[in-house]
Amino acid sequence: MPVPTTERTIDHRRAIAERNVDAILDAAELLLQRRAQASIAAVAAEAGLSRVTVYAHFPTRAQLLEAVVERAVRRTITALEQAEPEQGSPAEALERVVAAGWRELDRNRGLAAAALADLSPTALRRAHRAAYRRLGELIERGRSDGSFRTDLPTDWLITSALALIHAAGDEVRAGRITQAAALRFLAASIHSLLAPPPLEG
Amino acid sequence: MPVPTTERTIDHRRAIAERNVDAILDAAELLLQRRAQASIAAVAAEAGLSRVTVYAHFPTRAQLLEAVVERAVRRTITALEQAEPEQGSPAEALERVVAAGWRELDRNRGLAAAALADLSPTALRRAHRAAYRRLGELIERGRSDGSFRTDLPTDWLITSALALIHAAGDEVRAGRITQAAALRFLAASIHSLLAPPPLEG
Repeated sequence: MPVPTTERTIDHRRAIAERNVDAILDAAELLLQRRAQASIAAVAAEAGLSRVTVYAHFPTRAQLLEAVVERAVRRTITALEQAEPEQGSPAEALERVVAAGWRELDRNRGLAAAALADLSPTALRRAHRAAYRRLGELIERGRSDGSFRTDLPTDWLITSALALIHAAGDEVRAGRITQAAALRFLAASIHSLLAPPPLEG
Repeated sequence: MPVPTTERTIDHRRAIAERNVDAILDAAELLLQRRAQASIAAVAAEAGLSRVTVYAHFPTRAQLLEAVVERAVRRTITALEQAEPEQGSPAEALERVVAAGWRELDRNRGLAAAALADLSPTALRRAHRAAYRRLGELIERGRSDGSFRTDLPTDWLITSALALIHAAGDEVRAGRITQAAALRFLAASIHSLLAPPPLEG
């Protein structure tokens, strides 16, 4: 049975819209990685689209930036899954997951700098929601089997681990520590942060 | 002996310049605490000075913001000194110092939000230099007497403690945790971060 013309038109329009969104996000990401100002005008020029088209999908630069960060976070989560957070002890799994997240953050340095500079903490948190959830599951697993502490809430443990990861990123970007040192400091610090505190005498 | 006229004129000019800088910093701080845009024009209006005078002292908004943050950090250091970082065990001293720093950060929430949003990590670090040094001395004292870890550099311990303090500040500002909870989480987390790691079996 042939598809009616109106449905074909709608499918066709949807395909164009999706392709445009991809092109816009690619262009914005490229500009941010090059440390260029990803203004709506610059993004439109880079994507070969009109400014009207860009505005139709992203009314503000902040919304566009948030969408770019969200896509980068989705890629990061794929990398985290490949680090197999379900395998082995929670402490070892966390070490693999932090290393994988760290490599992704390194790949996205320009983007991370723009996001930290221009997104509100609430927008940043929204964009990272999926990564928070994934890290939360791993931490819950460690809390259940006694390898991670339960005297502080999971949300705070996630927040503080991510704060350390981003602080280490800043240190590397500023040239104060090397990539290798940062990963070593992070692994040791996050381990201490999550381990059950020794019983006080 | 009467002071020569030219010297008196220079002293007089210097006094005016100092008074103007104080008025500019007060005005900028007031605007930032109210979450208002502290543009050079708005600061000049609030301080009752001409824009030319403000620009003469602070050529850019970033330089002005950095000076405001630096002054707030100086006030924070006075509060840290009153917490007596030299008294008692380093761990207890650190707990008092973190609580004092935390109260100051709370008093300066609007300013902290503007600084995080608009200053580069390098400018932020520059503005906090004096606080870093003070915290560094306390951490060194704990490293010498065995109460703090020596497997990670002091600089990283300072950076990570401050990252946690600022992350807790974000959580409180976003209404996700209370002031009291934040201080409790911070005390426990910074304690774990700085304690010597248990010997691995």
